[in-house]
Amino acid sequence: MINNDTIIALATSSGIGAIAVIRLSGENCIKIVNQFFQSKFRTKDLTNVKSHTIHLGTIVENNRIIDEVLVSVFKNPHSYTGENVIEISCHGSVYIQQEIIQLFLKNGVRNANAGEFTLRAFLNGKMDLSQAEAVADLISSNSAASHQVALQQMRGGFSSEIQDLRQQLLNFASLIELELDFSEEDVEFADRTAFNNLITKISSTLKRLIESFALGNVLKNGIPVAIVGEPNVGKSTLLNALLNEEKAIVSHIEGTTRDAIEDEINIDGVTYRFIDTAGIRNTKDFIESIGIKKTFEKIEQAQLVIYLFDLEKIKNKLTTIENSISEIKKIKEKHPTKQLLLIANKVDLVDEKIIAETTTSFQKTPLIFLSAKQKIGILELTSTLTQLANKGALSNNETIVSNSRHFEALNNAFNAIKEVQKGIDNAISSDLFAIDIRQALFHLGEITGEVTTEDLLGNIFANFCIGK
Amino acid sequence: MINNDTIIALATSSGIGAIAVIRLSGENCIKIVNQFFQSKFRTKDLTNVKSHTIHLGTIVENNRIIDEVLVSVFKNPHSYTGENVIEISCHGSVYIQQEIIQLFLKNGVRNANAGEFTLRAFLNGKMDLSQAEAVADLISSNSAASHQVALQQMRGGFSSEIQDLRQQLLNFASLIELELDFSEEDVEFADRTAFNNLITKISSTLKRLIESFALGNVLKNGIPVAIVGEPNVGKSTLLNALLNEEKAIVSHIEGTTRDAIEDEINIDGVTYRFIDTAGIRNTKDFIESIGIKKTFEKIEQAQLVIYLFDLEKIKNKLTTIENSISEIKKIKEKHPTKQLLLIANKVDLVDEKIIAETTTSFQKTPLIFLSAKQKIGILELTSTLTQLANKGALSNNETIVSNSRHFEALNNAFNAIKEVQKGIDNAISSDLFAIDIRQALFHLGEITGEVTTEDLLGNIFANFCIGK
Repeated sequence: MINNDTIIALATSSGIGAIAVIRLSGENCIKIVNQFFQSKFRTKDLTNVKSHTIHLGTIVENNRIIDEVLVSVFKNPHSYTGENVIEISCHGSVYIQQEIIQLFLKNGVRNANAGEFTLRAFLNGKMDLSQAEAVADLISSNSAASHQVALQQMRGGFSSEIQDLRQQLLNFASLIELELDFSEEDVEFADRTAFNNLITKISSTLKRLIESFALGNVLKNGIPVAIVGEPNVGKSTLLNALLNEEKAIVSHIEGTTRDAIEDEINIDGVTYRFIDTAGIRNTKDFIESIGIKKTFEKIEQAQLVIYLFDLEKIKNKLTTIENSISEIKKIKEKHPTKQLLLIANKVDLVDEKIIAETTTSFQKTPLIFLSAKQKIGILELTSTLTQLANKGALSNNETIVSNSRHFEALNNAFNAIKEVQKGIDNAISSDLFAIDIRQALFHLGEITGEVTTEDLLGNIFANFCIGK
Repeated sequence: MINNDTIIALATSSGIGAIAVIRLSGENCIKIVNQFFQSKFRTKDLTNVKSHTIHLGTIVENNRIIDEVLVSVFKNPHSYTGENVIEISCHGSVYIQQEIIQLFLKNGVRNANAGEFTLRAFLNGKMDLSQAEAVADLISSNSAASHQVALQQMRGGFSSEIQDLRQQLLNFASLIELELDFSEEDVEFADRTAFNNLITKISSTLKRLIESFALGNVLKNGIPVAIVGEPNVGKSTLLNALLNEEKAIVSHIEGTTRDAIEDEINIDGVTYRFIDTAGIRNTKDFIESIGIKKTFEKIEQAQLVIYLFDLEKIKNKLTTIENSISEIKKIKEKHPTKQLLLIANKVDLVDEKIIAETTTSFQKTPLIFLSAKQKIGILELTSTLTQLANKGALSNNETIVSNSRHFEALNNAFNAIKEVQKGIDNAISSDLFAIDIRQALFHLGEITGEVTTEDLLGNIFANFCIGK
C-alpha cells in the first residue's frame, strides 16, 4: 500500500487568486523540483537547503520561464506527509497553475488521488486514522461547533485515550492468551482485579464516547429543531426573522418528505436545522390524523421542539390558551425527553391583559413572548437556543465523537467488552472470553487505524478533496 | 501615501481547498501574529526567527485554538512588499479563513485594499510601476502568449530600458538647464553630438515599443480574425471544427454590434477572437450595401482575414470561382496590409477536377482546402494560423508592450522627443526645447512610476484583486 512515488496536486482552492499553492510529496520531490528551479541571484541547490525554508526563484522549462515562485522545502520526516514535501507558491492564474502541474506530470510525478497526502501522513505514522478523518471534517467545517469538534479530534482528541486503553487491554490479552497455553496448569498470569478494573474503565469510557455521539452528530450536521404550531401562527416569519437577525448562511433544502422544507440557520456558531411540521390539532378526520402522526415523527427526529402559538388568535377568540396547553401536554406525553421551547407570537398585536393571562395560564413554564414580524424578542430567543444547545456540551470541552464510523466501532467494542465483563462476573474460563477481548481490540483498533484494511482506507480517503 | 500599518487579506482563491494562505504585511505584522501563535513543541518567538523560514504551530485566541497552521516569515526588505510579511497557511475551510482574518482585524490589522500588497511593493521600490501592472496581467493571463508578455514585463522587460534612457536624458536635461542659467554667456555644457545620438536612440526605441503594442494588445486580448464569405459557406461549422479539434476554452460573447457573435478560441497558446461578418457581394440594394460597409469595418478591426468559399456551390454552378476572386480583390484593395487566408470548404463534396480548376484559378495564392464538417484539413489551418500569429513576434523574444497606458505614455514621450529632434535639427535655442525634454522625461517616468500621482496609482491598483 505504501508508495514512495512523487505525487502532485493543487493544494489551494481552484480558481484565480493572488497566489496558488501546488504541493508535491515523495522521496524524490525535492530533487525533481530542483531540476526546474532557478534561484534569482545564483544557482541554488534545493537538495542542500534546510527543512522549513523558503526560496525565491523561477520555474523554468527549456529556458522558458513559467513563473516566479516561492518554493517551500520540508524534509522527511518533518512534513505533513512525513515524506519530503515541496510547496510551490505561484501566481494565482489558472493557466500558470496548470503549466506548473503539467511540467511535473511530464517529469516523473503523478497526480495525487483524493486525500492521498493525508493517507501518506497516516501510513507514515504522522497521525492516526481518526485524526486523518478529522482533517476532512475540519476543511468542510462551516460553524464554530463543527470546527471545534473536528479540531479537537484532529489534535488527538479521544483517539489517544482509545489507543492507551487498547494498549492496556492488549497487555492483558497477551497474558490471558498465555494462560490458555498453560491451561492445564490452571495458572492466572493476569491479575483478575486489575483486569476487572480495566474492563470497567474501558466500558465507562466507551459509554461516555458513545453517548457523546448524539451531540457530536448534531454539532456536525446541525441541531434538528421541530417547529410545531397551527397554520398561520407565524412559523415562516419567525424563520425569516432569525435569518435576518443573524445574517447567517442560509440554505433551503428540500426535505425527504414532500411537505417538509428544512431551513439551516447558524446562530452563535451553532447550526440549527429547522423542520417545519403540519401542526397538531384535536381531530377525528382520518387524513388530518395522518398529518399529526407525521408531526410526531418529525418531533422524534428533532432534538429541540419549538411550540409556537398566536396571541392575536387568542385575543380574537379564534383559539384558546387551553387549546395550546393541551397540545403541549400531548407533545410532552409522546416525547418526555425532548427539550421544549414555548413561544407566544404577535405580542405587538395584543394588550397587557392577554399577556398577563397567558403568563398565568402557563404557570411556571418558561415562555418567550415575541413578534416575529416586528422583530421583538428575537434576541431572547437566539440566546435561549444557544443556552440549550450548549447545555452540558461544547462549553466544557468534553470529548465528542462526531464520526458515524467511530460511533459504530465504539458500539461494537462496547458490546464485546460487555461480553468480557459478563465472563468475568460469571467467572467463566478465560478461553471463552479471550475471543471477546480480541473483538474489542479489533474494534478499538479500527478507530485509530491500528487495525485497518485497504477497503476501509479507500472508503475514508475517497471522501477527501484532491490536494489534501 | 506610504502607510506602515499592517494589512491582511486572503491570498489564495476564495472557496474550499486543502489549504488557504492568508497574507499580512507591515512593520508590526510579525509581532502581531506572534501574540496569537503557539509553536507545537515549545514556545517559539516569531520575532526572533530567520527570514524565509516556516513554523508549525497553532493560532490561538483566548485559549481557543482556531487552527493548526504553518507560518512563513519574511523580513523587511526581503519580502514581496519590502516590509515584514507573514503568510499563514491554514486548513482551507472558509470558516477557518474568516476566523483567522477576523482575529487579526480585532487586533490592530486592517483589510488590505485591492492591489495594496503590490502597491506597497512599488512604493518600497521592490518593482517599478510597469512591473507592478504586469503582476495583475500575469494573474489574469489565460494563454501562453498573454502569459509570456506579462511575465516578461514583470521581470523588467522594457521598463529597465526606459529607465536607463530616461536617466541619460535626465543628465542631458540638467546640463541644458544649466546652460539656460548661463544663457548670457552662450556656453554649451551638453555635447550636442552625444545629445543628438541619445535623442535618435530614444526615438527609435520608443518607435519600436509603440509598434510592438499592436501585437502586444492582440496577444493580451486575442488576435481578432474576421471570417468573410457568403452565407452558408460553412463559417459556423468551421468554428465548431476548430473548437472541437483544440478542445480549447470557449466563450461566446455577444458583440457590441447586434449582428456579431464573437468566438474565442485558444490554438497553440494563442487566443483568437473570431468575428463573423455579413459577407461581401456585388449589390445595388441599399440595405445590403450597409451590411457590406459593416463587413469592411470589421475587417478593419481584424488583424487577420479568413475568406471562406464553398466548392460545392461552384460545382453546382451556384457561384463561380471568378466571383470569389473578385471579392478577394476588393478586400485586398480596401485593406492592403491585412493578412489574408483563403479557405476552400466542402472539399469532400467535389471531385479532383474542381479542386484542380480552383488551384489553377488562384494561381500562386496559397489556398487551404478543407472540409469543416468532415474535419479534413483542420490541422493545416491551425498550424497556418499559428505561423501567421507568430510571424516576427512571440518566437524571437522581442520586447512587447501590451498595456494601453504604457502605449499612451510612449506615444506622448515619442511626440515630445520628435519636437526635441526638430529643435536640434533647426539649431534652435535650447531654452525652446528644454520644455519638450521635460515633457519626454515626464511621460517616460509615467511608465516606470518615477513620475506618478495618487490618482494614477489609485486607478491602476483598483483593478487588482484583493490579496495581491
